This record gives sequence, structure tokens and C-alpha cells, in this order.
Amino acid sequence: MNEGSPTAGAMHPDRLFPADPGTRAIARSLYAQVRALPLISPHGHTDPRWFATNEPFTDPASLLLTPDHYITRMLYSQGVALEALGVPARDARGASPEPRVIWRTFAAHYHLFRGTPTRLWLDWVLAEVFGIDVPLAPANADRSFERISERLAQPAYRPRALFERFGIEVLATTESPLDTLEHHAAIRASGWPGRIITAYRPDPVVDPQTPGFLENLVRFSELTGSDALTWRGYLEAHRTRRAFFARFGATSTDHGHPTARTADLGEREREALFQRVVRSAQAGTPHGDEAEAFRAQMLTEMARMSLEDGMVLQIHPGAWRNHNAPLYARFGENIGADIPAATDYVGALRPLLNRFGNERALTVIVFTLDESSYSRELAPLAGHYPALKLGPAWWFHDSPEGLMRFRERTTETAGFYNTVGFNDDTRAFFSIPARHDAARRIDCSFLARLVAEHRLPESEALQVARDLAYRLPKQAYRL
Amino acid sequence: MNEGSPTAGAMHPDRLFPADPGTRAIARSLYAQVRALPLISPHGHTDPRWFATNEPFTDPASLLLTPDHYITRMLYSQGVALEALGVPARDARGASPEPRVIWRTFAAHYHLFRGTPTRLWLDWVLAEVFGIDVPLAPANADRSFERISERLAQPAYRPRALFERFGIEVLATTESPLDTLEHHAAIRASGWPGRIITAYRPDPVVDPQTPGFLENLVRFSELTGSDALTWRGYLEAHRTRRAFFARFGATSTDHGHPTARTADLGEREREALFQRVVRSAQAGTPHGDEAEAFRAQMLTEMARMSLEDGMVLQIHPGAWRNHNAPLYARFGENIGADIPAATDYVGALRPLLNRFGNERALTVIVFTLDESSYSRELAPLAGHYPALKLGPAWWFHDSPEGLMRFRERTTETAGFYNTVGFNDDTRAFFSIPARHDAARRIDCSFLARLVAEHRLPESEALQVARDLAYRLPKQAYRL
Amino acid sequence: MNEGSPTAGAMHPDRLFPADPGTRAIARSLYAQVRALPLISPHGHTDPRWFATNEPFTDPASLLLTPDHYITRMLYSQGVALEALGVPARDARGASPEPRVIWRTFAAHYHLFRGTPTRLWLDWVLAEVFGIDVPLAPANADRSFERISERLAQPAYRPRALFERFGIEVLATTESPLDTLEHHAAIRASGWPGRIITAYRPDPVVDPQTPGFLENLVRFSELTGSDALTWRGYLEAHRTRRAFFARFGATSTDHGHPTARTADLGEREREALFQRVVRSAQAGTPHGDEAEAFRAQMLTEMARMSLEDGMVLQIHPGAWRNHNAPLYARFGENIGADIPAATDYVGALRPLLNRFGNERALTVIVFTLDESSYSRELAPLAGHYPALKLGPAWWFHDSPEGLMRFRERTTETAGFYNTVGFNDDTRAFFSIPARHDAARRIDCSFLARLVAEHRLPESEALQVARDLAYRLPKQAYRL
Repeated sequence: MNEGSPTAGAMHPDRLFPADPGTRAIARSLYAQVRALPLISPHGHTDPRWFATNEPFTDPASLLLTPDHYITRMLYSQGVALEALGVPARDARGASPEPRVIWRTFAAHYHLFRGTPTRLWLDWVLAEVFGIDVPLAPANADRSFERISERLAQPAYRPRALFERFGIEVLATTESPLDTLEHHAAIRASGWPGRIITAYRPDPVVDPQTPGFLENLVRFSELTGSDALTWRGYLEAHRTRRAFFARFGATSTDHGHPTARTADLGEREREALFQRVVRSAQAGTPHGDEAEAFRAQMLTEMARMSLEDGMVLQIHPGAWRNHNAPLYARFGENIGADIPAATDYVGALRPLLNRFGNERALTVIVFTLDESSYSRELAPLAGHYPALKLGPAWWFHDSPEGLMRFRERTTETAGFYNTVGFNDDTRAFFSIPARHDAARRIDCSFLARLVAEHRLPESEALQVARDLAYRLPKQAYRL
Repeated sequence: MNEGSPTAGAMHPDRLFPADPGTRAIARSLYAQVRALPLISPHGHTDPRWFATNEPFTDPASLLLTPDHYITRMLYSQGVALEALGVPARDARGASPEPRVIWRTFAAHYHLFRGTPTRLWLDWVLAEVFGIDVPLAPANADRSFERISERLAQPAYRPRALFERFGIEVLATTESPLDTLEHHAAIRASGWPGRIITAYRPDPVVDPQTPGFLENLVRFSELTGSDALTWRGYLEAHRTRRAFFARFGATSTDHGHPTARTADLGEREREALFQRVVRSAQAGTPHGDEAEAFRAQMLTEMARMSLEDGMVLQIHPGAWRNHNAPLYARFGENIGADIPAATDYVGALRPLLNRFGNERALTVIVFTLDESSYSRELAPLAGHYPALKLGPAWWFHDSPEGLMRFRERTTETAGFYNTVGFNDDTRAFFSIPARHDAARRIDCSFLARLVAEHRLPESEALQVARDLAYRLPKQAYRL
Repeated sequence: MNEGSPTAGAMHPDRLFPADPGTRAIARSLYAQVRALPLISPHGHTDPRWFATNEPFTDPASLLLTPDHYITRMLYSQGVALEALGVPARDARGASPEPRVIWRTFAAHYHLFRGTPTRLWLDWVLAEVFGIDVPLAPANADRSFERISERLAQPAYRPRALFERFGIEVLATTESPLDTLEHHAAIRASGWPGRIITAYRPDPVVDPQTPGFLENLVRFSELTGSDALTWRGYLEAHRTRRAFFARFGATSTDHGHPTARTADLGEREREALFQRVVRSAQAGTPHGDEAEAFRAQMLTEMARMSLEDGMVLQIHPGAWRNHNAPLYARFGENIGADIPAATDYVGALRPLLNRFGNERALTVIVFTLDESSYSRELAPLAGHYPALKLGPAWWFHDSPEGLMRFRERTTETAGFYNTVGFNDDTRAFFSIPARHDAARRIDCSFLARLVAEHRLPESEALQVARDLAYRLPKQAYRL
């Protein structure tokens, strides 16, 4: 949204900058140098089909509300039924509400988002993408619904046009090894030059507690021609599939485990562990400790393969997925019921780091949902091991306060250069520029304070601001 | 203290507001709209006898110092004997020091409280309640002692008069199920319209590790006519007593467990667990794991009853009570030797939340002494489960920095509307207005920053400020 | 560096002060009153040989870079080999790089330290000690190397001259009980009046997992004439050696354990535990649980001896030493591979505190690498137990943000007077004034905010600033 002019209403040009006038002036000046840099989106969850088919987005509710678990969780917490937001129960028989009705429900509860990043992102999308410069409210809900609907029907609001308008240089999606990558193939075949790449997320064939794990292994075998029910065949299947993903631009893998535990077993133990895991799966009795041990070992296996093929390894640990069992039973995953848990890194990562952490050719990017680990474990680890870098503030912490705490607590020990810039990590395509913009503003605000407190010359702060916004993510993710 | 004019000395009208002039002006303007709102005190520990008898308070030391464990802990930590503060040892034979001497001891150590909330609260009480506008110091200790003593003898300083002067709309005390609520009955019988209500705190009959637990169950049976040594009778006794408390205005229960653990056992297991607990108590050998399991199950039982009778369930977990064993042996409880411990919520609350967390008719308010859980566990949980709300910063964290950290770390994920305004949670009656005032100032300061950083329009911030100060506590506690 | 005039280049006179002009003016005014106070350095790791021999320091690299693990860790994390920084591998055969080459390598990577305390300290050393007023950069690396080299050859840059120029009133080093203290003896014999004292750090004879533990006990016996392989003789050896250390000024002991665990076993169990530890050591099979139990008990033994001889007991727990096993195998200790771990205090310290925590004659100073414990456990513990005080922000947290978080999170519960001022805790002699200066500036900045927010009168803030900078460390460490 590089050309976007600030609107009178929602989006103030100084938003997110510190209030102190001197510091604000510095932040403004730093930000002016980075605001228009192209967006690097090295990790996210947009749907490659959008860019493959380039069909118009359907309606405001199913585009902006129903799939956004930041929104559904907040409304649900205040008594709004998920069905009323268009989230269907597994056994739903009736129809979902009309999109316009969902939009009205959202508008009636928009005050719940005061002080949250969702409010910032949505205000940005309404103002900057759709030119709606009054805050959403029940009284204007229908007007904004119509305005958005009209725009979505226009060619300028199709996925590829927006990708270009948003100034995205590269956008990574995330796929399972079982994905055929047909949409990525279609994008490439189309001749459209937008750089959409995939990333290798093997959880469905790595986590024995995934529903359908055994069937996944069978499919993994079929796709690769390796017998993924044997240890050697299984590893070979990964290698084959990683190479396939690399052909569609993948430069990274991603692993969403419950903990950050890693292991470095001997060759024989690894194979025996795999066999136990398969037998348990075949018997229909997956075993928690076994599954945890296998996930742990597989992070080290993935690091080994990363040394071979150059892919960056990302670890996103620490979410207790589907915490609300009755709701999961009715609605399934990704409805806003994943809750962070205290996460150990210093012991958990040691086996992997002691095996491969001294390799300069390897990049492991670690994320956390447990902010207490920033200064205690993560910054010290990343400030020592050559292979380890810190991913940016993630998920619940990808917010103005969260992004600022990340810098405040990691910089003094890890510096800026053991971090990797920003990840939007989102499926909410329309909010991508707003998220990068917030990250750039917060980084500039942090740097402005360092300058104002005479801890860093402004000329160096400017270099750091540029590195964080553009150079570091490209370099860290090898883009 | 709505009419209170700021004194030249201790209390500056801009106290606790951010220093930046622009932000301060916004905070001042928001605060002007909420400062005079009536005080809602939905959870606290004042003595209902004060309001029943309306007798004058005795003397400055036994009113303001001896029962305040924030004060006794700090002085004790710096070498002052508890006896010198009027706290009697269990086996004390000699007399306590004169109140005037205790007051002098306090004045001589007043510098220890620099930077603490106790200093803020005491300065406020001296200035605003007693018109003493110089900070307490050894040189003026006697003068202030006399001034306070004189005032306490005046009708305007009796409990009911102060209740009215303080602008309290409703004040909850906390009683055990074994309490007869005679003082509450007397207040009602007196015709005085001050709204003093009770709250149901069943720890003495729920926690098998309470001294006298078995005797408590016997008394529980006597009071209710149910055999509280059987599982059914025990639950029935709770129901009877909750209904009795409700007649004296109770809208909430409160549970002060060592951990936040909950359980959701089957009917047979619950009963068997209760029987084991009773047998252990009868044998004089309470068992730690059993006690923990029983407390855990009882939170879920209390939630079940809350669904029946509409009472709000409060959980105050995570204090290691009576950490200093030798001091506990000599002086007993509540002397300032309770220490917070790391507290898990994500696993601990799951059984209760999976059972009843999706009930919109239920309100569970959870507190913490472990600030690392704010952004990691509590805000995500409260931002999802309809039944769960976040209690305000508690105890050690009920302070300017603590209140601010609460907002900084919970708002972006839970919003404002999954929080419940302020609790003073105090037995220090005179400090109640000071505590609410500090909370209002800090909330306005936080909101002022959001406004100054263009994250929230001022008109909306004002609405939030009013909600936090008045509407939310009334609504959450059903007052 | 009391006379140091600010340079035009790197060191701004307002550095580290808050940006808000009003608050900054207060900070500046408070700092003006404490900046020239003598430095009290009650805990650190400088080499007493420097002051014994008073020989010139050799070269810029081996003085300022190679031994500084803050520097080596950061460069290593970004792919610079330790050998390139002059850190020799255990089996090194070739020569180290020339100091000038090491200096150039450092200059080429100086941007990595943006935003870190190392940058602040180094800038200060270059500007204030060596008069180099442009930031280090590849283009000026040779010039600064030469300038420093020239200066180091001058009499004014010898250890004793710098000690005096730095305005250090007292400087404690840290030695093992097996150390002969010959350098301390030489300092005393020399007639030079600089007050260099030792401190008793018995880890090598207390931690059964120390390499060479058994040999250390044998040497301990030889040095003391007690049979340190028996429990009584072992304790007697400690007493003897503590008395010897006291003759060289020691007023404190220090204990660097993996955890904060303490124990208070009965007489028989203690002796039996010691015997098991010795037997395991003799068998060459040290046992982890046994070692942990022994370290735990020894903290209580040390507290007992502190009550006898008046030494202050320091506990520095929570570092996972030598986390990077392959690097440890090649290079040994103190290369920047120690990583903090989550650390419990509330349970861990209880045995010692229940035994001796109520003793007013005892001072236990506890440190942490786990900032989540500041407000949760440490401030409440120190705000209660008379014997317990909080050491300042330590190691990874001895930085502007870390020092500020320490005050923000401990003051409201522990006050200022249960803290002990600043420890530089460094082997980097040249940076000592910079570190104290940063601590004074941050403390003044924190106090300035309290003043600006009308939470503390400026006159009292000034008294606190002086206490933190000078009086409290002298008093707490009995200097």
C-alpha cells in the first residue's frame, strides 16, 4: 500500500509512534525511509489458490471475518455463537447466516476490539484498501458491507492485483508434504510474475498424534515412491518431497510442535523409535511419550536435511492446540481455542543445538508464545549458537505491545542481527500490509528511543531499520 | 472522597499520570470523567462488624498499621520485630507497645516505603482523610498521631459516615460458610442504607489441609442440617449455605487455593475422593495429593452450583501461604509471609473450563500472582472461553506498575471487556478510595497512551474508562 | 572517571536518560549529585595480579576483546571463529592471530553490538579512557588500535593508576579456597593504598560435579591442616579458609550453583550425604542428585558460618554452564555458552530461609537470570525475610533495559532498601566505571519518573539515588 494516503478518519500518520515529540520526530524520520520498502513475507498461511485462479473474493464476511480466529475467539468469548459468525459445526444442517448478517454481528461487537491489534488491522483494511474512513459501527455496517462488496467485484480487488498493489516482493505459503502444490504449479504456468513460494510443513507425517497419521504415511509413500513405513524409506520420502517443494520456491520448513523438545538419538534408537511409532499407529493406540520423542528426533533429522538442501528450519512450539475439547468436537480446528503454555528452550533445544548448532551453513529460526523466555533463554541462545536465529513476536504477541517487548527483551543480548525481521504469519491476506506496517512502526519507535536516549546514532538506527524491514528477512530466509 | 481537594503536600492532582505533557493532558481529561464515579468494591476483606456497630475506630496504629501486612512485612524485612508493631505472638504474655510508640516506629521507617503503593495509599489517607499535608516523618509523628486520634473520635470518622464520604456504592466482605453473618444481619436490621454484602469463601470446609477441617465439617453439618460427612450431605450443605449467603447480598464465591488446579471426576470418583478425604481427616493424617485433588474437584462443583444459583466464582491461586514456618509458629497467619509461586493455568483450569467454560450463564473470575501468565495463558484463555474473565492485578501487583503491566499484557489478546474493573481486595478500609483512585488513574494513563499513539479515538477511550471504573465490575459481579 | 568530560562523539551527557524533557531534567539533576561518588565494587572478577604487579596491560585485543565473553559470544553467533578472536582451542597448535588482526575483526563486526550494553561500555572505554571520540569502524580500526597501544604503554594506564583515576573506593575480586591469595598479599605488602579485597567462592570444593573435585578436597586438606575428606574436617577447613580470606579483606562468599536449591538436613544426614559424595568422587562416579543435594545443604552450612564470621552470602544461581558441549570440549569454559534457565526460588530457598532467614545478623544476597522471578518470588521474599536482600540485575540483565526492569518489578514490593546497589561483576576492568555510570543513570531515570509522576518528592529521590549509588552497597557488603 505504498501509495496510500492517510485518511482523515481511522489511520493517523503518526500511529504507533511514541508520544514524546522528540522521540516521535525521530521515529517518523526513520519510518519515512522504510515505509515504502517492498514487503518480504517469508512465512504465512494465505491460500495459493487465490493467486492461481485469481477469482474475485466472495464477500466481506467470508473474506475478513469467518476465517480470522482472532475475531472469532474474541466474539465467542463474549457470548457470540460461532455459527453466527459463519463457522459451521461439523454436523451443521441449517444454512449459515447471510454474510451481511454476520457483518452486522461483527459491527455490533466492534468495541470489543478496542486496544487490540485486530482493531488496528481492520481499521487499516477498511480505510486503506476500501477507502472507508469512519470506524465500523452498527449504524454504518450495511454501508461498509456494500462498499466492500462492490469493490471486491472490481478487477483491482482480485488477488493478483492486490498482491501488486500491496508491494509484496515475495510471499510464502505453507503446505503439507501431502499437498500436490497444484496451485503453485498453476501460478507458475500462468506466466504471472508474482513471487509466491511454498514452505514445507511436515507435521501431518511427523506428528504421530495427528488424526490420520498412518493414512498420511501411506499417502506419503505413494507420492514419493519410497516406503514411508520403514525408517529409511520415510527419511527418503522427506528428501524427495523437500526437493519437490524446493522446485516451487520453498526455502524453509516449519514445525508446529507442542513443545520445543529435540533429541539426538543413535541410528539404531531412531529406527527403533520409528518402528514403535508405526506399530502404535497401526494398532490405533498412539502413545504420548513416544510421539513426543519422535517429534523431538525429527527436528534433528530435519536439521540434518537442511544442511543438505539449504532449507531454513522454523520451530513454532508451545501452543496447546484445541484446548476446548467440546468446542473442538463440534467445530474442529483453528477456531481460536489454541492456548500458549510455558515453554522450555534451554533444555529442549540442546540436543539439536549440540548436534548442529555450530554449523554456520544451517539456519534454525525459533519462535515462542512464552514471552518470559525472550530474555531468559532465547536471546542468550541466539546470541551464542551460529545456527540459531530468533523469529519475530508471534501470534498473540504480533501486536504493538508484543512487538515492542520482543525488541526490549532480546536486543541487549542477541542484538538486532540474530533476529530475522518480521513474519506476518497470517491467512488474512488483506491485513498483510497493515501487519508489516505496524512492525516497521514499532521497530522505528524502538530505535527512536535508542537514538533519543543517545544509545545509538541516528545514522546507525536508520541502517538497522532498513535491515529489519527488508534485508534481514531476505537474508535469513535465503530469498 | 469525591469532593476532596488536592493538598499542597503529598497528593498532586496529576499523580500517576504519564510525564509526557500531551499524554498527560489526555489522561487528565479522561480521569476527570471517572474520578467521581461511585466506588464498586465487589471483593474485599473489611470487617462487617464496623458497619454493624458503627463504633469509632480505636487508634491510628491498630487501625492503619498493625493489621496491614504490606506494612508489617516491609518493617519486618528491615529488622523491626513484629511485636514492636503490635502483632502479638501466640504465647505473648507482656503487653503490646502503646499505639503512639508503634506509630513512632512506623514514622522512623517511613522511608522504606518510597516507591511502594503503601506510601501512595498512606499519603492519601493522611492527606485526604485526615488533612495532614506533610509527609510522615519522625519529627511530625506525634503531631499526626494526635491529629488522627482526635479525628477518629469525631462522628464524621465513624465507619458508616466514612463509607458515605468515600462514595462507596457497594462493598463486599468475605466470610466463611461457618460464619453466622450476624453483623450483616445487624446492618440490615439497622435500617442504614449502606450496601454491604457478603461473599462465600468456603476454603475452611473445602481445603482438607485447613487446621480444624474435620471440626469445620461437623459445624457445617450443624449449621445446615445436612450430614456434611457424606458427599451428598456435604454438597447439600454448600447449597444451603450459599442460599443463606445470597440472602445477605452475596453474588460471588471465592477460593484461595495453592494452585489453580481443577478436576472433573466422574460421580463415583468424586464421592470416593470425598470419603478418602474425610477418613484421612478423621485419622489425623491429611494427605497432600488427596487434598489437592479434592480442592481441584471442588472448584468444578462450585462452578456447577454457580450455574444453579448465579453466583460468580472467583479463583485466587498461587500463594505459598505461611512460607516462614518459624514465624508462623510464633505469630500465625497474615503477617506478610505469603509468597507467590509460578502458577500454571492452561493445564490446571482445563477440566473446569472443558466442563463449564462454554456456559454463557457462568462467570469465573481468575486472578494471578504470576505476571508471566498474563500474556501467555490468562489473556488467551479469557479471550476465548465465554465463562472466563480476568480479575484485576492482585495483591503484590495492585500497584501503579503492576496495574499498568496488567493492561499492557492482557489488553491486546483479551481486550478490555474480558476484564472486570478493579478489586481493592483489602481489609484497610481507609485506603479503599486511594486504591480505586490509583486504578482509575492508571487505566486512564494506559488509555491516554493508546489515544496519544493513535490506537484508539479519545471518545472511545472515555467510554472504556467509564466501563472499567464502574460498569464492568457491576456487570461482572452482578451487582 | 570522575573528571571525564563528555566527548563530542560517542558519549552524550544525557545518555540513558528518558526522552521526555521534564523527566530528563529531573534525571539529570539527580545524576549530577551521584555521578562523582566513589565506586563501590563489592563483587567482581578482575585479576588481583594486575594490581600486585602493576605491569602495563599488553595490547588492545587481549585486554578488551578476547577475555570478554559478551564479545566472543556475539561474534561467534554470527559466524566468527573463536580462534579468530584469540581464544585458543585446548589442542591448539598454531599461533593466535596478531592482536591487530583480532581488533580489525572486531571493528568489522561492531555493528552487531548496536543496541547492546557492550556497545555502550566499549564506546565509553574508547572515548573516556582512550580519548577516541569516533565510533569504532573498519576504517579507523588501525588508528584506534595504535592509539590504545600507545596509551597502554604509558604509566597513567597501568592498573593502579587507572584504579585511582576510575575513583574506585573498594574492589572485590573472587577467589577459590584453593587460591593462595599471593597477589592480594603482594598488594598489601606493596604499601599501595588501593583497597582490593578478595571474596570466598568455594564452588571448586562444594560442587561435586566440578572436574577435579576429589583432588580439590585433598588440596583443601593440605592448605588447612584439616582432613577435608571427613565431614567435620571439611567444615573446619572451610572455617579456616574463610578466616584466611577475611584477613585479605573478604566480607562475602559467593556460590554459583545451577539452581537456588537449599536444604537443611539433620546432623546425621548431612554427614552421611558428605560421605556418599566423597565415595562417589573416589569411585569416579559423581551422582547428579547427590551433588545437587550436597550443594543445597552447603548453602545452609555457609549461612551458618556467615552467622559466625559475619560474611555476606551471595547466591548466583540459574546458569546452565557450558551448554554447547562440542564447543566446551574444544575451548573450555567462559566462552559465552552459558545459558539461563527458569529458576525456582520460593521452594528452593525455603529450607535455608526457614533455618536462618529470620536472623538479622545474617545477609544473604540473591541474584537471578530469570526476570520472571523479580516480581513473583524475589521481591516478595526480600520484602519479608530480614536476612534476604536482592542483588542487582545480573549478567545478561546488567544493561539499560535490564537494570530498569529490575527497578520496575522489584521496587513496589521490596522497596529500594532491600536491594544492595550495583555490582559490576566483571573481569573487564576498563569497563567498570561505564557499568556503574550506566546503573546510576538508570536508577536516576527510574527515580525521575517517580518524581515526574508525583510518586516521590524530589528531595527523597535524591536521597535514594545516593543510597543506591554508594551507601547501600557499602552497608550490605559491610565495607
